Amino acid sequence: MPDTRLTDEEAKAPSARTRVKRLPQRGHYDRETLYKVLDAGLICHVGYLIDSQPYVTPTAYWREGDRVYWHGSSASRALKNLKGGIPVCFTVSLLDGLVMARSGFHHSLNYRSVMALGKAELVEGDGAKLATLEAFSERIAPGRWPELRPVTKQELKGTTVLHMGLDEASAKIRTGGPVDDEEDYALPVWAGVVPICLAVGTPEPDSRLAPGTKVPDYFKQIAIG
Amino acid sequence: MPDTRLTDEEAKAPSARTRVKRLPQRGHYDRETLYKVLDAGLICHVGYLIDSQPYVTPTAYWREGDRVYWHGSSASRALKNLKGGIPVCFTVSLLDGLVMARSGFHHSLNYRSVMALGKAELVEGDGAKLATLEAFSERIAPGRWPELRPVTKQELKGTTVLHMGLDEASAKIRTGGPVDDEEDYALPVWAGVVPICLAVGTPEPDSRLAPGTKVPDYFKQIAIG
Repeated sequence: MPDTRLTDEEAKAPSARTRVKRLPQRGHYDRETLYKVLDAGLICHVGYLIDSQPYVTPTAYWREGDRVYWHGSSASRALKNLKGGIPVCFTVSLLDGLVMARSGFHHSLNYRSVMALGKAELVEGDGAKLATLEAFSERIAPGRWPELRPVTKQELKGTTVLHMGLDEASAKIRTGGPVDDEEDYALPVWAGVVPICLAVGTPEPDSRLAPGTKVPDYFKQIAIG
Repeated sequence: MPDTRLTDEEAKAPSARTRVKRLPQRGHYDRETLYKVLDAGLICHVGYLIDSQPYVTPTAYWREGDRVYWHGSSASRALKNLKGGIPVCFTVSLLDGLVMARSGFHHSLNYRSVMALGKAELVEGDGAKLATLEAFSERIAPGRWPELRPVTKQELKGTTVLHMGLDEASAKIRTGGPVDDEEDYALPVWAGVVPICLAVGTPEPDSRLAPGTKVPDYFKQIAIG
């Protein structure tokens, strides 16, 4: 399809390979939408190649500015490969509902997703590493980091943190009810949306809590999904 | 590491590349565990290569016997590439909790995941396609399929269904509370697990429901995650 036929939104896609082609009305390319989806999620799926075989690894991530971050053991095979600068696909998907239509064909899902292509880079230097690990912790449980036993030099060495730019990224979002064939609306089939969301439960204390340790208030603020 | 040092569970791994190497005690290779995780999920992340670039696509899936299935538009670039028999990584991950430790380093996540490597194959023939789409629908909402307006020949043609064997698959699971350094247990830091789960909400009816259409009972049985 020639570029002249792209909508205004499609023209914002950073590359042909991140432009949403199937159902283009679901594609979004502005920072605000990308950041909103990324800041709601906790788990990404990172795709990469080792010996001609693609691997998809689920892992926790966080965002700072126009970059996403993830971490793991310095001994991890995945991270060792990724820090070598191989091509990466970073995908986040959040399920919002089951869309129930009057025909099987028009059933769908409501979701928010982001796909970013690029290459991962290593966060270098103990100070930078520590600062971004703090940002990760504070994103989940704001105020917890200063309460924790400080990170040791050895632990920092054993942790690899990667980051990747969002230059080549797109969001794909579906909301709303089913879209049925006009003649099917007369059918006595229940149609609508069954909402799905991630729910945060009541914190369950460890059996070896130090006497008198109270559940912190910041857990009430945890919002994921 | 020579094979003689593998534990009994590790020795069950179908291949070196699906054996869980980091934290091997989290690895499981028996069908019962694989199926249990797969049958709890709804969204997988499929990894594949196009022009040397890995892509990770989130999509709905279902399991029948020792195979996983997913589907989409016959016009989809991803599905067109996948049916060509390229190497695939099929990953499912379910988040169960945030593990809060007394040090940043020992924070973790509780999760269940499955990773399967293989090649996707096309489900061929209208009958086979229809039967597996019915299995998908019935897995989510048992009893709904016969109520729906039947699938047309054109819709079936427009739908591609792929499947992949689970010969080379492993599960990775973490459960339980934090494991802290012995000397950290004395610290007055709250530690434990903040449970996370997928919650199914109250069905929201479409604005154009045919008069008198009731919410079906089968929505009460929906269990995902």
